[in-house]
Amino acid sequence: MKKVLGIIGGMGPLATADLFRKIILRTSADSDHEHIHILVDCNTDIPDRTDAILHGGQSPLKELTVSANRLEKAGADILLMACNTAHYFYKEIAESVHIPLLHMLDETAAEISRRSLSAIGLLATDATIQTGLYHKALDAKGIEIILPSKTGQKALMDLIYKGVKAGNVNLDVSALLQELEHMRGQGAQVFVLGCTELPIAFEKFHIGFAAIDPTDVLAKAAVCAAGYPLKNAGIA
Amino acid sequence: MKKVLGIIGGMGPLATADLFRKIILRTSADSDHEHIHILVDCNTDIPDRTDAILHGGQSPLKELTVSANRLEKAGADILLMACNTAHYFYKEIAESVHIPLLHMLDETAAEISRRSLSAIGLLATDATIQTGLYHKALDAKGIEIILPSKTGQKALMDLIYKGVKAGNVNLDVSALLQELEHMRGQGAQVFVLGCTELPIAFEKFHIGFAAIDPTDVLAKAAVCAAGYPLKNAGIA
Repeated sequence: MKKVLGIIGGMGPLATADLFRKIILRTSADSDHEHIHILVDCNTDIPDRTDAILHGGQSPLKELTVSANRLEKAGADILLMACNTAHYFYKEIAESVHIPLLHMLDETAAEISRRSLSAIGLLATDATIQTGLYHKALDAKGIEIILPSKTGQKALMDLIYKGVKAGNVNLDVSALLQELEHMRGQGAQVFVLGCTELPIAFEKFHIGFAAIDPTDVLAKAAVCAAGYPLKNAGIA
Repeated sequence: MKKVLGIIGGMGPLATADLFRKIILRTSADSDHEHIHILVDCNTDIPDRTDAILHGGQSPLKELTVSANRLEKAGADILLMACNTAHYFYKEIAESVHIPLLHMLDETAAEISRRSLSAIGLLATDATIQTGLYHKALDAKGIEIILPSKTGQKALMDLIYKGVKAGNVNLDVSALLQELEHMRGQGAQVFVLGCTELPIAFEKFHIGFAAIDPTDVLAKAAVCAAGYPLKNAGIA
């Protein structure tokens, strides 16, 4: 039975477009009609997640549940969110609807586990790191998490906020590249791009380190959950 | 007053993702919240437009109006369609809702007119050409339309259906390139990519002829109609 997917998006918009496109590229289809029916709510009224969790900013929960309910009402059978940090509110959002909400971080933890890795470098927002979202998903599997230094984390947040979210391709990423090299020296076998802006940033800034892209992992999980055949190579 | 955009999509899915992304890249914004709230219905149940118009296939009109109404009900203030051929049904779709539906071909005709061109090469589906959709938009402006030969048109349809819609990057496009060269010889100053799969195809197959991209033209019109500031260069 083929299902309709609903993407809770806008966090940010380009990350939403990236997830949407990756679901299409990950579907084995020869015509429009063999593709998945997907509804997207690129809801740019959702307040910033990191700002809310760490700095007392307005909570995004209300708008997240508004989007989840809008998508369910419009016909979605399965929901997914194009934002790692928003998974801090996973339980409340899932409980606000009658359809399943896929969990990007759990899917990513399962993928890391399948690849038999023992240590990963975690690249994520301050809020995703400080709330331990990936630690919760990975600790049970005995996978070590290596984090950036304080200055490296600041360079990463700049890449997310002043780079991708601001549409700026002229940012200087040399300090971040040094940090990634340092994390590799500490044992990081691969980098988890634990913020949905980062797969876009790695592509645009040509950052070539080995990485796991949770957006792509979620796209693959969504294709399978919707009951469609997976494709391993796209027109990317 | 900022407006919510609704994209009637699925014709095809990659073309829908392309329009969605181009609207984001065309918005001048420094953060998520400065971007446009966009709803997308990638409705892959919409029957093929060319098949319906030329070969007596199932009409897409019912599903097109279902999507238009679904988006209006979900909160869209302005609608747009990521398919040139679907504009054959423009009047009926527009009449089925209480909100405006932007017209991609009229916007493109206005853009061609602004550039003071006298002859364009039209690349579009058999149905868009045979129903004279672009002729209606361009004739009043005195712009000559140069069409591909019969074999060139077949190569173009293969690029759309067996290339982009089927996710196949290994198609041989040499016959089409010859055809485009021939059309330039006939006076085509620029090519209008009058099928939303073609901007994707031109990029993926590295076809370098001067072109006007109606998807990008529509994206710019949508940003302005929604009341947001336009951006001229993106993170593309």
